[in-house]
Amino acid sequence: MNVTVLGAGAWGTALAKVLHVNGHAVTLWNRDAETLAEIQRTRRNERYLPGVDLPANWKLEPQLREAVRGRDCIVLAIASQGFREVATQLSDTRAVLVSVTKGIEYDTGKTMCGVLRECVSAARAVALSGPTFAAEVARGLPTAIVAASEDEAARRTVQELFHQPTFRVYRSADVLGVELGGALKNIIAIAAGVCDGLRFGDNSKAALITRGVAEVRRLGVACGAQAETFAGLSGLGDLMVTCFSHQSRNRALGERAGRGEKLDSLKRPGEKLAEGVPTARSAFRLARQLNVETPIIDEVHAVLHEGKEARRAVMDLLSRDTKAED
Amino acid sequence: MNVTVLGAGAWGTALAKVLHVNGHAVTLWNRDAETLAEIQRTRRNERYLPGVDLPANWKLEPQLREAVRGRDCIVLAIASQGFREVATQLSDTRAVLVSVTKGIEYDTGKTMCGVLRECVSAARAVALSGPTFAAEVARGLPTAIVAASEDEAARRTVQELFHQPTFRVYRSADVLGVELGGALKNIIAIAAGVCDGLRFGDNSKAALITRGVAEVRRLGVACGAQAETFAGLSGLGDLMVTCFSHQSRNRALGERAGRGEKLDSLKRPGEKLAEGVPTARSAFRLARQLNVETPIIDEVHAVLHEGKEARRAVMDLLSRDTKAED
Repeated sequence: MNVTVLGAGAWGTALAKVLHVNGHAVTLWNRDAETLAEIQRTRRNERYLPGVDLPANWKLEPQLREAVRGRDCIVLAIASQGFREVATQLSDTRAVLVSVTKGIEYDTGKTMCGVLRECVSAARAVALSGPTFAAEVARGLPTAIVAASEDEAARRTVQELFHQPTFRVYRSADVLGVELGGALKNIIAIAAGVCDGLRFGDNSKAALITRGVAEVRRLGVACGAQAETFAGLSGLGDLMVTCFSHQSRNRALGERAGRGEKLDSLKRPGEKLAEGVPTARSAFRLARQLNVETPIIDEVHAVLHEGKEARRAVMDLLSRDTKAED
Repeated sequence: MNVTVLGAGAWGTALAKVLHVNGHAVTLWNRDAETLAEIQRTRRNERYLPGVDLPANWKLEPQLREAVRGRDCIVLAIASQGFREVATQLSDTRAVLVSVTKGIEYDTGKTMCGVLRECVSAARAVALSGPTFAAEVARGLPTAIVAASEDEAARRTVQELFHQPTFRVYRSADVLGVELGGALKNIIAIAAGVCDGLRFGDNSKAALITRGVAEVRRLGVACGAQAETFAGLSGLGDLMVTCFSHQSRNRALGERAGRGEKLDSLKRPGEKLAEGVPTARSAFRLARQLNVETPIIDEVHAVLHEGKEARRAVMDLLSRDTKAED
């Protein structure tokens, strides 16, 4: 198949490599042409995927229109805040569209597949999401992921496109559940990171994350997703690993907040912003609109967007009375 | 209240300290009188709880009969393999009995509260379980835990006995679910440790643990527990942290197996055996009796008790086809 990956960050580059290994004709596009030129020259993407050899025989195309023309499948690996701008330019395409971006648009409360369906009239949108650090996928370590779409043929196509013995793709019809699990877990990971930064230990982190799992499911179900989806790879699986792994940017940002770093230094200009930061804002708004109780999201929002002290926020969470287990 | 803790390992000692801080009259018993003598002399339990100061004004009693006489509450912090032997000696007691031991008896398939109910005719048995590393509790780090019993008054008593601002006790009526969650998670943690030992990365570990959560719930429900319990602190919370934390003995044992250490060296004589080792045997038997599919438990059992190579076991798990997410 003719496939284009939009976005040469770590994830876009790693997925392009998976597709290339599977024998597809791959084009990689990036907003910043310099990154493409460097990949062309060095066969590496040292900034985002250090140490990983990249193929020679794929196409690096700096013109978006050219990159997507006549493709069977287009993969969007674009930060959520720039997602709509790119999606808008795909309005005429008939390709299967795959979003691998985990976020919620602030103004509309939509996930990325929701944005795709709005921007592209013939969209067959598929979300590809799960517990997947790009560096591990690029090194061929065993990984499992979910392809979700309401369109059965589209999710099967994406499964076949990406599937490898070490990159196992499962299917789901609950695209909203898969997307919300992936987006909301970043907020919980920031809270887990705050626990780490405060050196509160594993017991409190486990208590917090357990509540986080329930909170993500509660908000997701209120949005229209299926509860069971949050117990799967794209929900629980992604949430756990993001909360515990030292590879997670969101957890690391929380850890710095927990150590007392101030807000402006957390959002360093020039540094790639952890997706949980804008997602906390969107999710906080969404929860108020739907009248869902989301104590962890509220506290993370307060820390990131209202200047609340991180220690205070976590203490408030841990001392909050919850109901008995039953 | 007059409370006795049986077992001066890390967990028994830490819980005795919690009870002492709460103002109860605490007696600590241990099978090995030497440990008690050392605690008496040094006000420390350096072997199991290094660096933690212990109270002066509690009672250290090497005679079991003396230790439990006339007590309102008896806490059993005894390894599962020696649990029945101690429980048998409590047959006449009218005290509330609290098990903090995570295991399943091989011959009977019973959890520890099940053993208590069998051995003590007037037993009001409560399981106290959750994501709780003893060292963190002893240092006063925020912790949450579940007191589960079919006897409502008993679980309230235990909640009040232990509850502190940094040691929050929730209640549950599903004692079997709470106990099975705590016991079975140790097996999943061994499998997660094998992934670590093989350096398979976070992606594969997340995929494996996600299936582990479903597997524990499936077996637990077949035993008669409630599905929701496995999504709580004593299920999911304990499972996650045991799989990821470097404090977990079970995960560490799996890691050594993953690095290729042989079976006899994993079960070093003199070293405290990780509870997951006997639990894997019991759970494997239980699953066959109930005809429940438990691929992870089966593989861990094969590694620990049938000499299967750990790498082969995890490869078999990761390449196993599971159904689509839905």
